[in-house]
Amino acid sequence: MSAQAKSHEGYEGMIMMNKKYWLGAVCALTLPVCAMAVEGMWTPEQLGDVVDDMKALGFALDAEQFRDLTAFPMGAVVSLGGCSASFVSPQGLVVTNHHCAAGSIQYNSREGQNLLVDGFLAADLKAELPAAPGSRVYVTVAFDDVTAEVKAAIPAGAAGKARFDAIEAKQKAMIAECEADAGHRCTIASFHGGAEYKRIKQLEIRDVRLTYAPAESIGTFGGDIDNWMWPRHTGDFAFYRAYVGKDGKPADFAEDNIPFTPKHVLKVSAAGLDDGDFVMVAGYPGSTSRYRRAAEVGFAFEFTYPQRMALFDAWIKDIEAASPADSDARIKYESLLQGLNNAMKNYGGQIEGARRVKLLDRRKAREAALDDWLMKDASRRDLAREIAELDRLIAVSNDADRRDYYYSYATRAGLLNAAQTLYRYAHERARPDADRDPAFQDRNASRIRQGQERIERRYDDRVDLSNWSMFLENYLAGPATSRVAALDEALGLKDGMTRAEIKALIAPLYAGTRLGDKETRLALLEASVAELDSSTDPFIMLARKLSAYERAQEEAGKERAGQFAQLRPAYMEAIIAYAKSRGEAVYPDANSTLRLTYGTVMGGSPKDGLIYTPFTTLQGILDKDTGEFPFNSPQSLLDKAAAKEFGDYALESIGSVPVNFLTDLDSTGGNSGSPTLNAQGELVGLLFDGTIESVNSDWDFDPRTTRSIHVDSRYMLWVMEKIDGAQHLIDEMTVVR
Amino acid sequence: MSAQAKSHEGYEGMIMMNKKYWLGAVCALTLPVCAMAVEGMWTPEQLGDVVDDMKALGFALDAEQFRDLTAFPMGAVVSLGGCSASFVSPQGLVVTNHHCAAGSIQYNSREGQNLLVDGFLAADLKAELPAAPGSRVYVTVAFDDVTAEVKAAIPAGAAGKARFDAIEAKQKAMIAECEADAGHRCTIASFHGGAEYKRIKQLEIRDVRLTYAPAESIGTFGGDIDNWMWPRHTGDFAFYRAYVGKDGKPADFAEDNIPFTPKHVLKVSAAGLDDGDFVMVAGYPGSTSRYRRAAEVGFAFEFTYPQRMALFDAWIKDIEAASPADSDARIKYESLLQGLNNAMKNYGGQIEGARRVKLLDRRKAREAALDDWLMKDASRRDLAREIAELDRLIAVSNDADRRDYYYSYATRAGLLNAAQTLYRYAHERARPDADRDPAFQDRNASRIRQGQERIERRYDDRVDLSNWSMFLENYLAGPATSRVAALDEALGLKDGMTRAEIKALIAPLYAGTRLGDKETRLALLEASVAELDSSTDPFIMLARKLSAYERAQEEAGKERAGQFAQLRPAYMEAIIAYAKSRGEAVYPDANSTLRLTYGTVMGGSPKDGLIYTPFTTLQGILDKDTGEFPFNSPQSLLDKAAAKEFGDYALESIGSVPVNFLTDLDSTGGNSGSPTLNAQGELVGLLFDGTIESVNSDWDFDPRTTRSIHVDSRYMLWVMEKIDGAQHLIDEMTVVR
Repeated sequence: MSAQAKSHEGYEGMIMMNKKYWLGAVCALTLPVCAMAVEGMWTPEQLGDVVDDMKALGFALDAEQFRDLTAFPMGAVVSLGGCSASFVSPQGLVVTNHHCAAGSIQYNSREGQNLLVDGFLAADLKAELPAAPGSRVYVTVAFDDVTAEVKAAIPAGAAGKARFDAIEAKQKAMIAECEADAGHRCTIASFHGGAEYKRIKQLEIRDVRLTYAPAESIGTFGGDIDNWMWPRHTGDFAFYRAYVGKDGKPADFAEDNIPFTPKHVLKVSAAGLDDGDFVMVAGYPGSTSRYRRAAEVGFAFEFTYPQRMALFDAWIKDIEAASPADSDARIKYESLLQGLNNAMKNYGGQIEGARRVKLLDRRKAREAALDDWLMKDASRRDLAREIAELDRLIAVSNDADRRDYYYSYATRAGLLNAAQTLYRYAHERARPDADRDPAFQDRNASRIRQGQERIERRYDDRVDLSNWSMFLENYLAGPATSRVAALDEALGLKDGMTRAEIKALIAPLYAGTRLGDKETRLALLEASVAELDSSTDPFIMLARKLSAYERAQEEAGKERAGQFAQLRPAYMEAIIAYAKSRGEAVYPDANSTLRLTYGTVMGGSPKDGLIYTPFTTLQGILDKDTGEFPFNSPQSLLDKAAAKEFGDYALESIGSVPVNFLTDLDSTGGNSGSPTLNAQGELVGLLFDGTIESVNSDWDFDPRTTRSIHVDSRYMLWVMEKIDGAQHLIDEMTVVR
Repeated sequence: MSAQAKSHEGYEGMIMMNKKYWLGAVCALTLPVCAMAVEGMWTPEQLGDVVDDMKALGFALDAEQFRDLTAFPMGAVVSLGGCSASFVSPQGLVVTNHHCAAGSIQYNSREGQNLLVDGFLAADLKAELPAAPGSRVYVTVAFDDVTAEVKAAIPAGAAGKARFDAIEAKQKAMIAECEADAGHRCTIASFHGGAEYKRIKQLEIRDVRLTYAPAESIGTFGGDIDNWMWPRHTGDFAFYRAYVGKDGKPADFAEDNIPFTPKHVLKVSAAGLDDGDFVMVAGYPGSTSRYRRAAEVGFAFEFTYPQRMALFDAWIKDIEAASPADSDARIKYESLLQGLNNAMKNYGGQIEGARRVKLLDRRKAREAALDDWLMKDASRRDLAREIAELDRLIAVSNDADRRDYYYSYATRAGLLNAAQTLYRYAHERARPDADRDPAFQDRNASRIRQGQERIERRYDDRVDLSNWSMFLENYLAGPATSRVAALDEALGLKDGMTRAEIKALIAPLYAGTRLGDKETRLALLEASVAELDSSTDPFIMLARKLSAYERAQEEAGKERAGQFAQLRPAYMEAIIAYAKSRGEAVYPDANSTLRLTYGTVMGGSPKDGLIYTPFTTLQGILDKDTGEFPFNSPQSLLDKAAAKEFGDYALESIGSVPVNFLTDLDSTGGNSGSPTLNAQGELVGLLFDGTIESVNSDWDFDPRTTRSIHVDSRYMLWVMEKIDGAQHLIDEMTVVR
């Protein structure tokens, strides 16, 4: 899979160390190849701290203009929610990754017309197809620091849940005020665990249409096998178009909507890059864990990842056993299977990476160094005490997570989860919108509805029954402290039950429920608490029986979250002060806000004895092609590659059209679809993945092995011109040759 | 596993094409890295044809001296039977691969003293341990062309089986005459499918002792996971010592035997190699298929390999299901499991390689070019007719092999095979030695006995019963034409039987047999035909019932072999003549005789986007080490590698001790343990494997991807000096610094 699917386990990570320090320390270990990746997902306002370094690498523009997110070029960079993208024509043409548009391609496929397999190219505007329900293009229109406002809303001395509630209430109020401007979606993003808050206001374009996607034999060439792998030859690009109402404002899909006119548009380079050239990527990385404490690192690597790997392995086998290959049931679970296999591959890479860099030892050493520094000055000792407090809180939180782990899977049944949402929604709707849990506010009503609509696509009774039995068996085999009386009583679970006994116990729920029917579920979105309380649907009854326990857990979680919101900023304050004392800058962990990362086109040596070259070529596609999915290129591509019909898109130094390339940029899930820009700010590619040796960089940036993978704009243009006949789209863009 | 375990499927291969042609053709496809491997496993007498090329690459000795197999340096190169090795001290010290000595290391292990795990170093001669029974060191003492003699023994017009019998009888007579010189083992080797015959006379040293082997955490570091892989970090070396009687002649093991004094000994280089340096390897490659006809290639890749991959997969699962992990039964089958997994990996590499180079298309094109050339001249048309005849024979032979395939596994039961050997041996012993099948002649009596002695080590009743049931089910599911009435009747097999039914049918054979008892089997080695004919042992009775069918098949096989012996030389004559017309030399397919291959130290680009560097380093061991088998280096090695205690063994260009290196040499199974020599003929390493991208070169040499893997002599010496304290062995050798 893609960078998009990378682990979102953690939220923090490691202090930005001086690059020269890194270079010295690691080069000694990596002879003969010693090329180092560049760490840092910088917020636009931080660019002043790194602009000298950027210029030394080749950056040729004014850093100041990058700091205005509504100016060129950052204003051309958009979020799709989970993926990044950019405007590439004045008619609202948006380029992103193929895998970011896959849902929309699939949504428009039907019997006898599989657009994933065939690809899709709209001959003109009229032929464009509506993207999948819920598809959005978010254009940032304002970005403000609201730290003072949020902090002012916290009553003096408010701790724990009181603190959490105060922050949440303030955020809800600010969002409501911001979204009073129709057609916008607003977010209050927290940075450094709550040390800073920013209000982000985005135009929410909700008429999004599919313009062009190459066949999956180009767009996902290599499939899951090549996922996270180099060498790579994936044409991971696709085009959307953003539409608005005739008044230029966001509108639901309508025939007479018009293309959106973006304020800023990227030029597309056909001249491209070579080894060592400066590049930068603007996008919306989701989450990193670089500042997490050692106790959190240990918990992830010693408990969470190994537990999940074992459970996911059993889960995959159970799905496969319960759904014959090629059955309708199996088709419904393909996406989950893919996700589980992907997660297994990721955890494997994480664990291997943590071993390689000795992650836990390094984190402990870093914390010891910070402690030493704090203790040297009496004025800093308060921070040290708060960090000690944070570690005590983490221990409590880890215990809670460990206890919850078994229960969380033991209640993972498709229709139970639907019932839980319906039951909670009924309760929340009984309250004023402003008082509700944010997930159940009216602004999210359509998301809740879509969730209930979509269940059938990924659900089969027999598979779900089999999986749930397995999870319950796992729960009963878990520690006694993880047992939840409400669940045991509701289902009649007893120690030592076999999976067959469990299955017999829960099978009647599937026989008795009506939640498998979509219309029933959608009707229940309107049901009152009283109606649901009197329901005899077995899954709704179960949801009701678990409700008190779950609410109590949620309250306890908020209590801890409130404590974290107090302690984590203190810890980050210490980190930032320490870094400052050493002349270093600290970028915040990724949090789905717009960031810039820069560096150069660069191969690397992931292992002793092995070198990744920075570019792959059309010849590599010929070499990999087997004629069978996922290595089944279109014949016309094979023919033209073999005939070396490179057109204007060859890179002389490799004697071919460059297909994918590596950079030393710092990226993670959510960066998928991000435009890769050259020193002039022209689009030279799209970021779509990182190498497997990079995944551990979410925890601890490893400059030796971290490499991002991009599709080259020259390959994109070559496919458009030579294979798919998309000349009219090329003509629509400004192509720099 | 190792080169030793490579496929021995085929016996022939491809015409030696002009290297410049190759360079031109392939370089165009492999930009930017364009380093080409050097094809050719030359017989010593062919060195005159390639000496200019060798000298151009750096060869600094007199080619003439290499042509005398009893002179330096070829006289120092020995065969262990299946592996290669060389003398490195005047006291008969022999160096070979760790994996070639593994049987002897295991043989000397016992409860509480696992020499594989601990390693072994004899402090002095007295402490050396006897190698595993049957271990031999073969020193070539004479090598003569006997083509004329063999051909003269074939009566005019003798065809088919008559021809086969005449050749076999002549070979047996020549061997008997040669071996009249006590202490020698003689072979008549056929080259080019019978176009030439050579008599090889070897001193057979049968008191072989284990002198030194590093721990498997060095000697097989990386294990099956790294098998056929690069980057590699395996210390695949071990030392034997050859002993003879006080009279200097081969003798059975005896306390007062003395070290053998070899005529020639290799110096060991501590100066070593760097990228691009000339190297050559002398050894005993087992088998290649470079001249096989397209119809034979197709049969292997379309029938044999896929059939076996499916069957071996089922076989592995069946063994695992029938023998709980860590059970005694599982331990007995570990070696088979390893072999099956290894074969699967090999077949996968073969199939992938065949796809990559379009093997079948290339072979057909080559045959078409040969046909064209033959048809241009009336004098060559006879050859074309014989080739057409050969293709008809191959079609018949493929049909027979396809038919036999199912039966061959359907009779693969451990004690049935023992019974078949005993039964056949009784018949053969009733005839004069000279008239027997070669495998049953007295010169092989000890091998037959050892075969019967060893069965228990690799055999478990329950696993064997389960496997045999699976094979029989596979046989019943096979084509009707593959059914054998004798087998069906003897066991009572009927169409559509389930595996459980089959198991019930054959289980009584296991209950009723006494062949599970070693003493019983050994006693039966003396039994007469009459005694066995009256035996009521169920496996002996089954062997008797299958005997007529098997003998008939054997006769039919000899008939075809006789035809092949006539037609294949004609085909090879055509190939050689065609090559000669183009100024090219043709080396014979590997046939376990001494060959020389030469080239340079060279990394490579096995795939677009990826580069193998030519050396790996101690740092790579630190990176790979997990503390768990097979990546569990000794702590002292980790410490000294981390402390960069390189001693005199560092290679400046890589800043470390080189562990393994790549060359472009042409090698295959049987080359394992071969000394790698520098331009001065000094030992700079040991060949121990090829990369997975090389395995298909057994069929069609691919200069782009073929690379041999060697352990560097500097790593060997570093381990000996720094880790294992084997200074007395270093002192015994002549080390060039």
